[in-house]
Amino acid sequence: MGKQYKVIFQPSGRRGEVEEGKTLLDAAQHLGVDIEAVCGGKKVCGKCKVRIEEGYFEKDNLDSKMSNLSPITEDETKHIKPEDGPGIRLACSAQLHGDVKIFVPERSRAGKQIVRKAAKELTIKLEPAVRKYAIELQKPTLHDLSVGDSERVIAFLEEKYGLKNLSMDYLVIKHLQDILRKGEWNITASIWMDREIIKVEPGLVESSYGIAVDVGTTTVVGYLCDLATGKVVSTESMMNPQVPYGEDVMSRITYAMTNQDGLERMQKTIIDGLNELMEKASAGLAVNGSGGAGSIVDMTIVFNTAMHHIFLGFNPEYIGRSPFVPAVQRSVDIKARDLGLRINPGSYVHVLPIEAGFVGADNVGVLIAEEPYNQDEKVLIIDIGTNGELLLGNRERVCSTSCATGPAFEGAQIKFGMRAAPGAIEKIKIDPEAKECTYKVIGKEEWAGAHQKFGTKGLCGSGIIDAVAEMFKAGIIDKSGKFVSGLATPRARTGADGKPEYVIAWADETSIGTDVTVTQGDVRALQLAKGALYAGAKLMMKKMGIEKLDRVVLAGAFGSYIDKEAALTLGMFPDCPIDKVYAVGNAAGDGSRMALLNRGKRTEADERARWVEFVEIAVEPEFEREFMQAMHIPHMKDRFPGLKAMMEEKKVPVAIKG
Amino acid sequence: MGKQYKVIFQPSGRRGEVEEGKTLLDAAQHLGVDIEAVCGGKKVCGKCKVRIEEGYFEKDNLDSKMSNLSPITEDETKHIKPEDGPGIRLACSAQLHGDVKIFVPERSRAGKQIVRKAAKELTIKLEPAVRKYAIELQKPTLHDLSVGDSERVIAFLEEKYGLKNLSMDYLVIKHLQDILRKGEWNITASIWMDREIIKVEPGLVESSYGIAVDVGTTTVVGYLCDLATGKVVSTESMMNPQVPYGEDVMSRITYAMTNQDGLERMQKTIIDGLNELMEKASAGLAVNGSGGAGSIVDMTIVFNTAMHHIFLGFNPEYIGRSPFVPAVQRSVDIKARDLGLRINPGSYVHVLPIEAGFVGADNVGVLIAEEPYNQDEKVLIIDIGTNGELLLGNRERVCSTSCATGPAFEGAQIKFGMRAAPGAIEKIKIDPEAKECTYKVIGKEEWAGAHQKFGTKGLCGSGIIDAVAEMFKAGIIDKSGKFVSGLATPRARTGADGKPEYVIAWADETSIGTDVTVTQGDVRALQLAKGALYAGAKLMMKKMGIEKLDRVVLAGAFGSYIDKEAALTLGMFPDCPIDKVYAVGNAAGDGSRMALLNRGKRTEADERARWVEFVEIAVEPEFEREFMQAMHIPHMKDRFPGLKAMMEEKKVPVAIKG
Repeated sequence: MGKQYKVIFQPSGRRGEVEEGKTLLDAAQHLGVDIEAVCGGKKVCGKCKVRIEEGYFEKDNLDSKMSNLSPITEDETKHIKPEDGPGIRLACSAQLHGDVKIFVPERSRAGKQIVRKAAKELTIKLEPAVRKYAIELQKPTLHDLSVGDSERVIAFLEEKYGLKNLSMDYLVIKHLQDILRKGEWNITASIWMDREIIKVEPGLVESSYGIAVDVGTTTVVGYLCDLATGKVVSTESMMNPQVPYGEDVMSRITYAMTNQDGLERMQKTIIDGLNELMEKASAGLAVNGSGGAGSIVDMTIVFNTAMHHIFLGFNPEYIGRSPFVPAVQRSVDIKARDLGLRINPGSYVHVLPIEAGFVGADNVGVLIAEEPYNQDEKVLIIDIGTNGELLLGNRERVCSTSCATGPAFEGAQIKFGMRAAPGAIEKIKIDPEAKECTYKVIGKEEWAGAHQKFGTKGLCGSGIIDAVAEMFKAGIIDKSGKFVSGLATPRARTGADGKPEYVIAWADETSIGTDVTVTQGDVRALQLAKGALYAGAKLMMKKMGIEKLDRVVLAGAFGSYIDKEAALTLGMFPDCPIDKVYAVGNAAGDGSRMALLNRGKRTEADERARWVEFVEIAVEPEFEREFMQAMHIPHMKDRFPGLKAMMEEKKVPVAIKG
Repeated sequence: MGKQYKVIFQPSGRRGEVEEGKTLLDAAQHLGVDIEAVCGGKKVCGKCKVRIEEGYFEKDNLDSKMSNLSPITEDETKHIKPEDGPGIRLACSAQLHGDVKIFVPERSRAGKQIVRKAAKELTIKLEPAVRKYAIELQKPTLHDLSVGDSERVIAFLEEKYGLKNLSMDYLVIKHLQDILRKGEWNITASIWMDREIIKVEPGLVESSYGIAVDVGTTTVVGYLCDLATGKVVSTESMMNPQVPYGEDVMSRITYAMTNQDGLERMQKTIIDGLNELMEKASAGLAVNGSGGAGSIVDMTIVFNTAMHHIFLGFNPEYIGRSPFVPAVQRSVDIKARDLGLRINPGSYVHVLPIEAGFVGADNVGVLIAEEPYNQDEKVLIIDIGTNGELLLGNRERVCSTSCATGPAFEGAQIKFGMRAAPGAIEKIKIDPEAKECTYKVIGKEEWAGAHQKFGTKGLCGSGIIDAVAEMFKAGIIDKSGKFVSGLATPRARTGADGKPEYVIAWADETSIGTDVTVTQGDVRALQLAKGALYAGAKLMMKKMGIEKLDRVVLAGAFGSYIDKEAALTLGMFPDCPIDKVYAVGNAAGDGSRMALLNRGKRTEADERARWVEFVEIAVEPEFEREFMQAMHIPHMKDRFPGLKAMMEEKKVPVAIKG
């Protein structure tokens, strides 16, 4: 066997050692990274473009001796275009001669990220910010010499529809005359907030589209909606293309602050990514002959405060350090063209307000989707993404806080953690007697059998939670999370690092050629995450004088896939009747969608974002003690008597449905 | 002598035959075009960059056989940069091998155009659209966590200054946090129309600048004003860089309509030109450490309707043909960044309204500067630029019209016509007995003597008017404009075209090596121009039932330089007591400046632009008859008895002072 080099693939985070001379496509396949290669590596399809992040050099110095990859071949130059940007290679052609870090662009990824943020039905009054109006003008004569076409349009809209003080976007005036003549004096105007004409089209055009976006730290999802019906026309998701700049929020803030043009580069990355996503989402539209993202006339967007600032090109420095003051708290409406978003250029993007320096527009989305402020029941809403955000209260008072859970719930910082993609273990059962285990992977219905080829690649977030809960129940780890020693199973063993680990999948079951294990470090990471969440919720309850929760709502795509029993086993949140624990799916995205479809929701968001009280939990003196206690794994059977009966009745854990 | 080729220099319009093998710098000097050449043509300074407009080929095909110029030399490649754009050569290096059309960029022009648009004192209440406000905030604490910095600024402005419903430009929010901290919580905000914060600066900054621009068909002038005092800080002018696309309005409209990207190219040309002009005008400013055009916070602009549409990127097609409907008649406020104007990026450019399809914002500028609507006297306001525009009336009613005078008044379409630059003949006297002549050129105090080297280059607009008036008075031409035959002077002769001409300057007096003459064609062009003006005014008077004018106002830079007596001699406008004829200078520019300094003037402009009645004169059945009559040169002595006495008293014509 030849020399081995370290290869890291982003954004999946898969990494491993690969032999000298292997192509990047070989490496990807070896490490379970799916790269599109329609031609099967024959160097003809050009689909397997990847970007070299490290271990490569400036384009001008493509000397093979200085690079950790073989020189660019003629086959590659045929496929790589200047607009691809620097550092692009074909994975099938570039061979390894040193350590490299590779970024696989969304379009080169074969195994598409499972869309775990599918849109659910919303019941909301349709009252979008952008509405269409039909206009019929008389053909002008010489008497109209001193009245411009735009004045005639505005006069018509006032007379026919009572719309007063309308303005017209500069780019609309620019094309108005051609469009009026093309439509033979019949046109359709799109008007924003009854204030500004942001688009005109020839003829009568009833269809109208908007997009509601939710930018997560890790994944981005866009819901393209028909503004005339409120229906979701298409849902498109992608990895957040900012992942190479840092997996978590703080590392991205640091990148922006410490790299020249770091902020500009990260802003451009997310804008470019959104443009690509919107182009895909709207590809099927054919509005009056011109489909594509240009036919999107309205846009709403939510994200955490760091993504919010970076998206807007605002220096995220001040929200990253005390006293954590944001540039702007209220919602802002910005011309899409000012940000380089390629929807209808006269349109605005409505950026939902944030709650506080740490609690972003995404949580405001959750807030207006779940409306705890309209309820009597005391509800705890947990939005689990890369960070954990909590809302607690009812119509009298709602508090919010943010918990530094880390990305363990999403499978990051876990040895064999991976994102929710085909081949990821999502459910696990461990027999308490034999300590043998079986599991399910995403993309397959059946459960795995020991030593049978199954294509297993790693553990996604819900898999890790399931694994730790099952390991606890089977007595492999104890209440403190420590591995129990001396177990009579080859699965519980000492790892290469000298620390105990448990084998979930044997190498021959996997597509990565190595055992998939859960290590002592993985268990600790999960304990830290759940401890932070639990302690945060507990302290909020204390502060607000709430002793018992009436309801727990699990928001976030991930929340929909957590096994309810496993979550209770681990003690991820304070006690609550189990039939009062609900998963609501991507509530942040729902809120974004509601604000898209109903302009009253925008006002509500601004009002409620200011009304919610932000509580800074981590600085409370009690926090550390509460957090230490919360690290333990509770005996849920003692705490939820009703669950005990349920568990004895059913053998297979029941996933909570969104 | 070798083969001769035709060479045309833009924007001066100078043209002539030049010998094969000569450099473009030789050609320029030969034809009296001043090109900067600090090194004296030694190919080292790189100052003599010119753009080849015709007789050249795509950059990729720089084959000398296909080009009318010698191939690019190494000396040139050292100086020519990609940002210079295509077609750039050093005039000292490129040699002639065929006909060419050359454009001399403003920065390569040595003989700077005489600024004939100097700003006069205006008395106007200072109430600019952009005002500055000092802000002092408390340093934020953890309690401000849920309030953004922008909300704190807005709250302060409301509390301290009573400014309600303020918004903040996106780019202001972008830099607000850094600026607040740099200014240690003391900043100065520039607020537009009491509505929007368009700039923030650290510390207390009292100085504030705006620019009022007047884009003429031929020349562009910008008045940089101190918004705190109303004073003009600097005046900068340049040739309109759109001249290469057509000397008059109609040819530019045609260019925009018939060339792919023609409109975009012309728009870019004027925007780039304005950016250069504003950079020069503001070079001396040092506002809080950052001078330059970025410190300009407000901008007003006037132009004719075609320039208006092209500047805004609007298709000028529809204002160019019946029923001549503009895209927009009202004033528009557009973010400078949307147009690529490099003033403070959050600022707006206020585009004054137009009156009608033909009567532009420049005439609105004249209107609000002269305010005929506030007067009892019946006044005729003539704005002479490349087109002639008329306003007639008083507080009861004001009508406007546009006369197709052609560019003869500006020296174009005249054989030796040139723009008002050093070496241009501006005044002429002809002895009625000997028919001998003497003249003054721009840039020299003394009058020329026959056959003495004088550096004469051609005739500017006021020179042509003077020449024709003097030729009439000396009996060289008759009342119908025809040359009188059989005069006993070598100056009156038959030209190469077989038609009569009169020599103003002998070849040895000039720097162009050829006699400067006034031809029969020149006289006809001037008669057409003045006839159109006279007939237009006469018909307007008839329509409005006005028999006698109380006052004539000559607006336009050129109007200030016309010899009053010569204008009356020619019959450029209907009868009026001579002491009631005033020249007011660049009234369009004054109007632009007033709108910059007083926001009430903007409202007034919008109201009055709609109130003025546009009269379409050219379609009147009477027009042709009136026009034919007006072509004749009147005996002004018969018509203005008072003038007769004045003429006999004074020997040297008196210029009308602005």
